Amino acid sequence: MYRTEDLSARTEELIRAGRLFFERGWVPATAGNFSARLDENHLVITASGRHKGELDADGFLVMGQGGEVLSPGRKPSAETGLHLQLYRHEPSIGSVLHTHSRGSTLLSRLSPGGVVLEGYEVLKALPGVETHETRLEVPVFPNDQDIPRLAARVEEYMREHPGLPGYLIEGHGLYTWGRTVADARRHIEAFEFLFECELEMRRLKR
Amino acid sequence: MYRTEDLSARTEELIRAGRLFFERGWVPATAGNFSARLDENHLVITASGRHKGELDADGFLVMGQGGEVLSPGRKPSAETGLHLQLYRHEPSIGSVLHTHSRGSTLLSRLSPGGVVLEGYEVLKALPGVETHETRLEVPVFPNDQDIPRLAARVEEYMREHPGLPGYLIEGHGLYTWGRTVADARRHIEAFEFLFECELEMRRLKR
Amino acid sequence: MYRTEDLSARTEELIRAGRLFFERGWVPATAGNFSARLDENHLVITASGRHKGELDADGFLVMGQGGEVLSPGRKPSAETGLHLQLYRHEPSIGSVLHTHSRGSTLLSRLSPGGVVLEGYEVLKALPGVETHETRLEVPVFPNDQDIPRLAARVEEYMREHPGLPGYLIEGHGLYTWGRTVADARRHIEAFEFLFECELEMRRLKR
Amino acid sequence: MYRTEDLSARTEELIRAGRLFFERGWVPATAGNFSARLDENHLVITASGRHKGELDADGFLVMGQGGEVLSPGRKPSAETGLHLQLYRHEPSIGSVLHTHSRGSTLLSRLSPGGVVLEGYEVLKALPGVETHETRLEVPVFPNDQDIPRLAARVEEYMREHPGLPGYLIEGHGLYTWGRTVADARRHIEAFEFLFECELEMRRLKR
Repeated sequence: MYRTEDLSARTEELIRAGRLFFERGWVPATAGNFSARLDENHLVITASGRHKGELDADGFLVMGQGGEVLSPGRKPSAETGLHLQLYRHEPSIGSVLHTHSRGSTLLSRLSPGGVVLEGYEVLKALPGVETHETRLEVPVFPNDQDIPRLAARVEEYMREHPGLPGYLIEGHGLYTWGRTVADARRHIEAFEFLFECELEMRRLKR
Repeated sequence: MYRTEDLSARTEELIRAGRLFFERGWVPATAGNFSARLDENHLVITASGRHKGELDADGFLVMGQGGEVLSPGRKPSAETGLHLQLYRHEPSIGSVLHTHSRGSTLLSRLSPGGVVLEGYEVLKALPGVETHETRLEVPVFPNDQDIPRLAARVEEYMREHPGLPGYLIEGHGLYTWGRTVADARRHIEAFEFLFECELEMRRLKR
Repeated sequence: MYRTEDLSARTEELIRAGRLFFERGWVPATAGNFSARLDENHLVITASGRHKGELDADGFLVMGQGGEVLSPGRKPSAETGLHLQLYRHEPSIGSVLHTHSRGSTLLSRLSPGGVVLEGYEVLKALPGVETHETRLEVPVFPNDQDIPRLAARVEEYMREHPGLPGYLIEGHGLYTWGRTVADARRHIEAFEFLFECELEMRRLKR
Repeated sequence: MYRTEDLSARTEELIRAGRLFFERGWVPATAGNFSARLDENHLVITASGRHKGELDADGFLVMGQGGEVLSPGRKPSAETGLHLQLYRHEPSIGSVLHTHSRGSTLLSRLSPGGVVLEGYEVLKALPGVETHETRLEVPVFPNDQDIPRLAARVEEYMREHPGLPGYLIEGHGLYTWGRTVADARRHIEAFEFLFECELEMRRLKR
């Protein structure tokens, strides 16, 4: 069974990530979802409909990796299935963060076939990238209210593309992850920066 | 008669909304107006000419739904009539918020015939929207210093378009509402995000 | 002679204005200058080379309206002469604020013949504007390291254009004023918002 | 030997600079590096992989000017060699700051031959600039994972261009410096402002 102090520590880290993301405009209204692994079978995840810039411990629930709610009376977000897919897919994933920024919304709509990022030093903040000479392709999945179907598509893609650091959903936002909340947060920051740069490049180069 | 604790609670919520909106740049100078319902006949509303990022309890007044000022010596904003129209139109409205952002100013001038929003996941933060496949038309009313005439136009439009979640005034800003201050604030956040995305799309697609 | 409590109060208001303007990016590096009238013959003004986002009382000096420094050992900003011109020109001016934003820098370079603002509701935040149907022409003066010469040009223009609420210096920034620091700050907010809108309109309409 | 109080004071100044730069979006993920001179032979510099918006004293290490680590167990950043080159090149340099903003990333990619800045009043915030009529050329070095090679290129360029106030690395960011941390920070603010203006000018003038 997971430790209570891990639940408190992860919850606090996710609350702080939410505050930061909200200040940046990356989780408007009640958009976004955050989670962290507690042990091999449990995770803590934001409840449905909470404002991500003003979370407190009541805004979270504990869940088994199979999807069973262990915090009575709390309703998981509709997108929980996308988090569960990642934790099941890769045991080293310790946190999953989903933002809903202007950059990820627009870029995913402008490039529904996938977003290519290259020539940016900040790519090195992403796992598995050792040099700015990398060419990273971020897949864009069509938005879908049927979350199990969307999760299955992501699973299939990830099997074919090991080491993927994140993906976009069209008109919807970014999912990324890491070993710890701090790692996942760093990946969010790197992707959002890259998306902003890429949008600006398109404006300037048209 | 309304309860004093409701007046304090609603005032505090509106003060916090003002601080947030000001940080975002959505209520420059003394722009914007905020109100909340106290009971079926009363509301609290920002007084004329106050800075919306630095409100305190003195920046508000209590008003009857017919427009009578119940806080002696305080002057209601010129746009109070637009708030009263909404509370009279729909008893379930508990709060009305008006912002004056760059996005709403520009988009309302560029699309005086109405702004169409579609394909955005965040549309689901608005009432009555269940899927991102929605097509939402936000009406734009011509700006008018004659507030009763403008309120009458809004009333007419809302009768013909039940379930409308918000509207724009040309070169002026956004009005939206909700059952609670938190709901109305979420709708402001969603609309402002959508307007920013829409402006950016137009820049990139021209 | 001016009252010590007025000096403290005005200084505190200017410190807070500086913090706000810095957060907005309107006074980068040590750009900007702020002042307030203490009585008919005295004013308090920011000293040379101070960072405007981190001012304290040591960052100001008291000055006679003729330009004589009354705070021994403190060096007035090179642009002090532009503040003095305004206080001499119009006794009802109680505060002068100068920002150096991206919007004012760019717009003044793109429209060296003057910036026309019309159709914006927020124009009503400026003195003498009663309706959004106003057409306001903001003059742009060529940048000049010879401050007395620049001040003389401003004086001449203001005599020919009574009621002017503010002006731009090319590639340099905005000067505006008001009866109180709060009024002048409101005018800064309104102008900066209008400049941002106007730049965006040009981007979108090209 | 350097004084302990200087180490504390410089570290505190760099921590505050990091917080500010992070709020502005200039050091996303763990990007950026900051250092300050402690005496003629020693400097304090950010350790590898730290988040620059949330630094504490543990995020720094003391180093000899020859590159020897004097804080056991701490790993210097890969880019330390670029800081050392500057301290060795010019004894009056007391602080070196490196940011990784959207503006510096994009402008360095769009103008790999060098960025020319002219006609901006804020140029006067940079050392050696007395008038806005200056024409400043900021060199752009190709990004290179081989830091000694990159440092040698910078050294060569600086010998040929005495008085250089800063440089860009393509797709990577800005290096600037000053006599004190406050000076270097002012130069960062001035450059970042200028880069944002310059990008916007290109958008508007295309």
